[in-house]
Amino acid sequence: MATKQAFAVIAGVGPGTGAAIAKKFASLYSVVLLARSPASYEATAKEINEAGGTAVGFSADVQDEASVKNAFDEAAKKFAGQPLAAAIYNVGGVFVRKPFLEQSVDDFKLGYQTSVLGAFIFAQTALPHLLKSAKSSPALEYPPSLFFTGATGALKGSPYLQSFSPGKFAQRSLTQSLAKEFGPEGVHVSHLVVDGIIDTPKTKGWLKDGPEGNKIEPDAIAETYLALHKQPKTTWTWELDIRPYVEKW
Amino acid sequence: MATKQAFAVIAGVGPGTGAAIAKKFASLYSVVLLARSPASYEATAKEINEAGGTAVGFSADVQDEASVKNAFDEAAKKFAGQPLAAAIYNVGGVFVRKPFLEQSVDDFKLGYQTSVLGAFIFAQTALPHLLKSAKSSPALEYPPSLFFTGATGALKGSPYLQSFSPGKFAQRSLTQSLAKEFGPEGVHVSHLVVDGIIDTPKTKGWLKDGPEGNKIEPDAIAETYLALHKQPKTTWTWELDIRPYVEKW
Amino acid sequence: MATKQAFAVIAGVGPGTGAAIAKKFASLYSVVLLARSPASYEATAKEINEAGGTAVGFSADVQDEASVKNAFDEAAKKFAGQPLAAAIYNVGGVFVRKPFLEQSVDDFKLGYQTSVLGAFIFAQTALPHLLKSAKSSPALEYPPSLFFTGATGALKGSPYLQSFSPGKFAQRSLTQSLAKEFGPEGVHVSHLVVDGIIDTPKTKGWLKDGPEGNKIEPDAIAETYLALHKQPKTTWTWELDIRPYVEKW
Amino acid sequence: MATKQAFAVIAGVGPGTGAAIAKKFASLYSVVLLARSPASYEATAKEINEAGGTAVGFSADVQDEASVKNAFDEAAKKFAGQPLAAAIYNVGGVFVRKPFLEQSVDDFKLGYQTSVLGAFIFAQTALPHLLKSAKSSPALEYPPSLFFTGATGALKGSPYLQSFSPGKFAQRSLTQSLAKEFGPEGVHVSHLVVDGIIDTPKTKGWLKDGPEGNKIEPDAIAETYLALHKQPKTTWTWELDIRPYVEKW
Repeated sequence: MATKQAFAVIAGVGPGTGAAIAKKFASLYSVVLLARSPASYEATAKEINEAGGTAVGFSADVQDEASVKNAFDEAAKKFAGQPLAAAIYNVGGVFVRKPFLEQSVDDFKLGYQTSVLGAFIFAQTALPHLLKSAKSSPALEYPPSLFFTGATGALKGSPYLQSFSPGKFAQRSLTQSLAKEFGPEGVHVSHLVVDGIIDTPKTKGWLKDGPEGNKIEPDAIAETYLALHKQPKTTWTWELDIRPYVEKW
Repeated sequence: MATKQAFAVIAGVGPGTGAAIAKKFASLYSVVLLARSPASYEATAKEINEAGGTAVGFSADVQDEASVKNAFDEAAKKFAGQPLAAAIYNVGGVFVRKPFLEQSVDDFKLGYQTSVLGAFIFAQTALPHLLKSAKSSPALEYPPSLFFTGATGALKGSPYLQSFSPGKFAQRSLTQSLAKEFGPEGVHVSHLVVDGIIDTPKTKGWLKDGPEGNKIEPDAIAETYLALHKQPKTTWTWELDIRPYVEKW
Repeated sequence: MATKQAFAVIAGVGPGTGAAIAKKFASLYSVVLLARSPASYEATAKEINEAGGTAVGFSADVQDEASVKNAFDEAAKKFAGQPLAAAIYNVGGVFVRKPFLEQSVDDFKLGYQTSVLGAFIFAQTALPHLLKSAKSSPALEYPPSLFFTGATGALKGSPYLQSFSPGKFAQRSLTQSLAKEFGPEGVHVSHLVVDGIIDTPKTKGWLKDGPEGNKIEPDAIAETYLALHKQPKTTWTWELDIRPYVEKW
Repeated sequence: MATKQAFAVIAGVGPGTGAAIAKKFASLYSVVLLARSPASYEATAKEINEAGGTAVGFSADVQDEASVKNAFDEAAKKFAGQPLAAAIYNVGGVFVRKPFLEQSVDDFKLGYQTSVLGAFIFAQTALPHLLKSAKSSPALEYPPSLFFTGATGALKGSPYLQSFSPGKFAQRSLTQSLAKEFGPEGVHVSHLVVDGIIDTPKTKGWLKDGPEGNKIEPDAIAETYLALHKQPKTTWTWELDIRPYVEKW
């Protein structure tokens, strides 16, 4: 089946959304996991491979063009002749939360580098592959996708978060520009605004006093990514929000 | 199976999005079709029933409380004891497109009545049923949903469209207020912004000179509604946009 | 001087923003005050006239076309031959704040009627005069203006406020459509989003425990309206927000 | 008079908006002009000084903390004991307009560096002075202001503009975060979205075939900055848009 013979690349695959997306897309494609350190992707790759899927991880620093290009080249070699079905940028913005006047220029750059510079480099590296997939024959079952994980901070600024929110705003702009430029070329670009706490090992103890179900399920996020990926090109979503039923907004 | 024993109500089921949504939800639920005239729902109901689903249509005027209440009462009687799984307001805004100074007060009211007054009445009638479903035991497989079809005009005003866009802005506001009020009660409220020409019998000849696939497919819209309906309550989307890959925006 | 020989119409002139706008514009123009009851405009008219300005009040119901048209006709007769320099719709949205399921259809219509139906009628009545002013020779010193007072509820929906916010969203849309249609004809259309409690007799006791200056000053709002009115047509603002320095948003 | 004994700093003072803002604020304050090269500010400084105002220019690179800090220190020394009344960041985003896949990482960084990194550094340097002004006694006549010039690209992404728009989105976010953090401290933070071609020597020949007045007047922009600066702290605008009457949007 055509779809099995393609691969997907997910950048940012720590335990949580990235791992869940990788597992979900592994039901359709071979998956390539990118993270700075193997520790971030090894468990997920193992889990997918043991479940009968195909996963391979590469260490890559999304802020480093050569590093990302190298990972894509390795992946293309590994899955020679297969089209790229999806490229998903799920790298969390790294930032500091502190009073503006205590933030350093380096603090400020952190959010920029992870949220938008990395997204720029990832998009530039993935797009030639995705454009080729869009024109490939026989066509993939679903249009090639370039998806980005956003956050509440992509829509509103907040005190103490100047090293986070500007990067997320910038990433959102980037995805819109890309959607408008590459949509007509057959690449589906989406921006998913995750508004709430995601249920991960790291957040296990958070919001304990709230009602049950007050954290976002990574698997359900991944299901939403997959639903967008399956949209035909006549009917594409650029942006949606995701939040728990009890979230105030 | 629990999900088969529930019903969904779709208001606005002319040939196009409404019919496609009805057919899609008929794969999970019995469906109730509301339209002003039986001519709007008969063919779709017949098609669903002949395909092994269960569909029933009622004439209702969404601007008339008693009419909508009556239709829900009839539906509740027909599917006695079953929970309401989804209520979808897909009534197209009726409006005139002409210079502002040539619009009459009645022209202006048209868009308001169809886009938002009808949505208000529909929501008020559906919500007690949906709240009951949210608390029902055994629970439905998917959280009860209250969805609304929006349009580009919900996000920006345009010349000559004063009888359309204000109603759609108002509907969008209504859906957000409802999402915030009833989300914590377990009802999933969403607003889907359809931005582009939908491929229906009426638009058959439109955009003929454009590239292939430049109209939105009703079936793919319906698939997106279904994907949102399946989101667990930890991971809900309030709003998304839908447009063809070549749409300028 | 040209500007003295023109008039402005302000609808919604209770004690607060409307009265402040009237007094501010009375420094440039004769002002016409519209309100449902003379009690709403008499004190302001008197104050303006005693201070050497010219003010006249007319009773009008903004939801009633004939009533608004009659008031403009009377004003045009009173200031025969003078151009209309500004028309300002400052009618507060009337609404109820209660759980959605306790709101009646009539409650819901309240906000619509005051926030947007009235605005539609006011705009339709004022625009022929404003268009004539835009083409008048010698030109007015400042472009003719059509301004609307909006609210936080024009930008976000909230629980319990379904009878308020949809009307304000709709009004916002209306103003944008009008700005796009009549801007090129020389009429400046603006929407001012007032986000916070305005300091009026009615709100005297509110927010008493907060810091000094936590309510919006009507006179400063009026100053902002005047600043927008003075913008040349090369450099127009459609929308701005106004809030106290301590407001959370 | 108190206001004469204060100073304002304007960064980005080439011929156009920056020069106009400098001249406008010179009617109230001594003004400090920052630009990378003296050629950018000399003519404006001369014009202000010859007209009886006080202007002084400093070369500064807004991307370089030390350079900006040095300029503020020099200014503080020059106007010893005077409060800073306003700091205005009007540095144009530098960018390339070309297909995304032809943009380099350095191209992409350009827009970021000028639109938001520079804004961050400028804000961090100006804020301690502005906070001191906010608490100064006797108070300044108008609250100290920190204003930023934005663009259409701050609100929507566009093809080929990935090196511009993300930086402007980020800057917008930064200004909102600052407004929320420092508004309660008495500093007025605003973001002015300039949507259209500004009438400058550089754009002299642009839009020649359009109607008269289709470019934004720098002097009128400056007047709008001044109007915002004069708002009392009870009644502040964070954001407004500015465009010519004929602009499509």
